[in-house]
Amino acid sequence: MAKITKVSPLAPAQFPDLPVIDRVKFATAAAGVKYQGRTDVMLAVADAGSTIAGVFTRSATRSAPVLDCQDKISGPTPNGVAILVNSGNSNAFTGARGRESVAAITGAVADVTGLEGAAVFTSSTGVIGEPLPHDRIIAVLGQLNSDLDSGKIGDAARAIMTTDTYPKGAMAQIDTDQGPIKIAGIAKGSGMIAPDMATMLVYIFTDAKIAQSDLQALVSEINDASFNCITVDSDTSTSDTLLMVATGASGVSVDRAHQGFKSALRDVFMDLAHQVVRDGEGATKFVEIQITGAVTDTEAKTHAMAIANSPLVKTAIAGQDPNWGRVVMAIGKSGAAADRDLLTIRFGDITVAENGWVSPSYSEEQGAAYMQNEHLIIGVDLGLGQGTSTVWTCDLTHDYIAINADYRS
Amino acid sequence: MAKITKVSPLAPAQFPDLPVIDRVKFATAAAGVKYQGRTDVMLAVADAGSTIAGVFTRSATRSAPVLDCQDKISGPTPNGVAILVNSGNSNAFTGARGRESVAAITGAVADVTGLEGAAVFTSSTGVIGEPLPHDRIIAVLGQLNSDLDSGKIGDAARAIMTTDTYPKGAMAQIDTDQGPIKIAGIAKGSGMIAPDMATMLVYIFTDAKIAQSDLQALVSEINDASFNCITVDSDTSTSDTLLMVATGASGVSVDRAHQGFKSALRDVFMDLAHQVVRDGEGATKFVEIQITGAVTDTEAKTHAMAIANSPLVKTAIAGQDPNWGRVVMAIGKSGAAADRDLLTIRFGDITVAENGWVSPSYSEEQGAAYMQNEHLIIGVDLGLGQGTSTVWTCDLTHDYIAINADYRS
Repeated sequence: MAKITKVSPLAPAQFPDLPVIDRVKFATAAAGVKYQGRTDVMLAVADAGSTIAGVFTRSATRSAPVLDCQDKISGPTPNGVAILVNSGNSNAFTGARGRESVAAITGAVADVTGLEGAAVFTSSTGVIGEPLPHDRIIAVLGQLNSDLDSGKIGDAARAIMTTDTYPKGAMAQIDTDQGPIKIAGIAKGSGMIAPDMATMLVYIFTDAKIAQSDLQALVSEINDASFNCITVDSDTSTSDTLLMVATGASGVSVDRAHQGFKSALRDVFMDLAHQVVRDGEGATKFVEIQITGAVTDTEAKTHAMAIANSPLVKTAIAGQDPNWGRVVMAIGKSGAAADRDLLTIRFGDITVAENGWVSPSYSEEQGAAYMQNEHLIIGVDLGLGQGTSTVWTCDLTHDYIAINADYRS
Repeated sequence: MAKITKVSPLAPAQFPDLPVIDRVKFATAAAGVKYQGRTDVMLAVADAGSTIAGVFTRSATRSAPVLDCQDKISGPTPNGVAILVNSGNSNAFTGARGRESVAAITGAVADVTGLEGAAVFTSSTGVIGEPLPHDRIIAVLGQLNSDLDSGKIGDAARAIMTTDTYPKGAMAQIDTDQGPIKIAGIAKGSGMIAPDMATMLVYIFTDAKIAQSDLQALVSEINDASFNCITVDSDTSTSDTLLMVATGASGVSVDRAHQGFKSALRDVFMDLAHQVVRDGEGATKFVEIQITGAVTDTEAKTHAMAIANSPLVKTAIAGQDPNWGRVVMAIGKSGAAADRDLLTIRFGDITVAENGWVSPSYSEEQGAAYMQNEHLIIGVDLGLGQGTSTVWTCDLTHDYIAINADYRS
C-alpha cells in the first residue's frame, strides 16, 4: 500500500490570502527532522505586549511539549512570545528524553530571540515514541530568526503539515468603532481527530488588544463549539494544541464580551475546524450531523458523536447508500435517551423516517440521489426535549485504510 | 465494489460435529425473505419441561422481536418452547408493522407446533427499516414443522447467517456424578458487533435439567465475560439476542453453582464469541487485548475497549505495523486513569515500552516480526492497581470498507 498523496476532493479551491497581522513574524526551515525535501519547522515571534492563550489535548498520555505549554500558558509574557513547531515527530511518549528535548529547544529559541524561556511555546506533530532529534531543529534556529517576516504565515501553514493533503488557513477582518481588527489562523490535522479535547495543531493571530484572561476565556468557549465538535476517526492525539496570540498592534481593545470580535473569531475557528474535517484521511464527503429534540445539549452531542463515529454509518456514506437504519442503530447504542417511535430522521430536507418507521413520503431513489452530494446533512430529532448539537465528520473509505495501515513503514 | 464472499482467513478448519441434544429438534427452509438460493429461516422446538433464558441488546432502538422476547423470557413454558429465526431482514425500526409481524409469526408458530404464543421466541437479522414479509415465513412453517429433526442444528447455523463467511458452532460434554451433560450452540455475527449489550444471534442448547432462574443467572454472568468482551467495529445491533434452552433430557439436574456445568458453558460461550470475532468483516488478525494494573476492572475494560475500537490501532494491525504509539494514544483517550510513565506495553512476550518510553531491549525488527502472526496479544499494564480485563477484536481492513460501503445496494 502506498501513501496517498492526492489532494482531498473536499479541499478549498485555494489557500486564502491571509492578512498581515502586525507585530508577529514567521519563518520556516527544512530541518530534516523526518521528512526530506520540504519545510518541517516553523517559528512565530510576536512583539512585547502580546498575550497568548491556548487549549490542549486532555489525553492522559499527552506529549512533553503539551505539558510544557500547559505549565506556561497563563504566565505573564511582557516581552513577547515565540511559537516553535516541528512536524514529522511528535515527541510523545519519549520519557525523560522528551522533556530534555523540549528544554533544549525552548532554551535555544529563547537565546536566539532574546525572550524568556517561559515565553517560548513548542508543538511537535508526527510519529509517537521516537526520540526527537532536537539538534536538527536547534541547528536552523539562527536562520529562522533572521528570516522572520510578517508575510510568511502561509509558509508556516505548509511547514506544520503531516498527513494533511493541503495547508489550512482562515481569516476575518472586522470594523469596530476604534478601528479595524484582523484575525489570521492556520491549522494542521487530518487523522487522529476527535473531540473532547483541544484539537490538532492550530495557531491563530490577531492584532486586537486583549488581556490574557479574556483571550483564554474566548478561546476555551469557542473551541468547545468548533474544534471539539469535529471527528474524523474518534481517535484523540497526544499532541493536540491550539495557541492564539493577540499582538495589540491595531490599538483596538476588546474583552471577552465584545460580540463583533467573538463572532469573527468563531468564524475563523469554525472555518479551520471544517477544513480539518475536509482533509480527513481518505474523506470524500463532508457530513454535518444536526441533533435536535434531545433531553439536554450534552445528550444531543452524545447522539451526534455516536453517529459521526460509527464505522457503519461512515462506510454507508462512502458507498452513497442512504442507509438510515444505521443512523437508528447509532442512536440506539449511544447511551443517551431515545424513544424509537418519536425519532425523526432527515437527509438534507428529505424526511426519511418518522413515528418509528420509514416516512410514507420517502423513496429510496430520493435518498440515493441525495447521497451523491459532497456535503451531506443528517438531521435527527429525538422528540424528547430542547437539547441540540451539531458536529461535523467525514466518511470512512478505502483510502483511510491505505493511509493508516502504512503510515510508519 | 462487490460483496466479499471469500471465507475469513481466521475461520476454523471446519464446522464442529455438534452432539444431538435430546428433546430439541431443528428445521430450516428457504423462504425468500430477502436472499435467494439459500435457507433463511430456522425453527427449533424443545419439548415440555424445557427452560429458556436469554440476554438481549441494550440498544434504545431495539427491534420488535427483541422487545417481544424480553417480555416473555422469564415466563413459564410448561409445554416446551419454540425459536423461529429469519435472516435477511431484521424487522427493526419498522414501527407498528414490526409488532404486527412478530404477532403474526409467533401466532402461526404456536398454531403449527401446538405451543402457546408466550412460548414462541423469534429473532430477525438483516437490513433495518424495511417491512418484514412475514407471509413468506408463515408459508413455510408447515414444512418446517414436519421437517423437525434432532440432527439438523448445523443446518440451523447456516440458515441464520447474513454477512458471515462461515457458520459458527461450539460444543461441550461433561461427566457429572449423575451422568453426562451435553451442550451445543450456534451463532451468527460478523459486523455491527460491540459489547455492552447481549450479542449478535446465539442459540445454545443443553440436555441439563436446570430451573429457569438458575439458567438465566448463568447466562447473564457468562455473557458478561464472553460476548460482552468482543468488538468488531464498536457498533451495536438493534437485534442482538442470545437464547439458551435446557431440555432436561439427560436427567442430570444442575443449578447456577454447578462448577462443571458453568465451566463447560463458559467454554461454549467463549468459543462462539471468538468465532464471531474471527469472522469480523474483513478481518485478517485475531487480537486479544489484555489489560492489567488498572485501578478497577471496569477501568481496565474501558482501556481495553478504547484500544480494541481505535481505527488507528486496528489499521496498524492490518498493516502489520508494530505501532505501539497508537496503543499509547488509545490509552490516553479512553478516559480511564493512566500514568504515562508507569505504562508497560507488550506485544506477545515482547516488552515494547516501559517507564514512559520504548524499552531498551526492544527492536523494531522484533516487533515487525511479531505482527506477522495471525493471533496477536497486546498487553498493557497500567501500574496503578489490580484491575484486569481481556477483550477480543480484529483488524480493520479494506474488506471491511468494501463489505459495508456496499451492503444494501
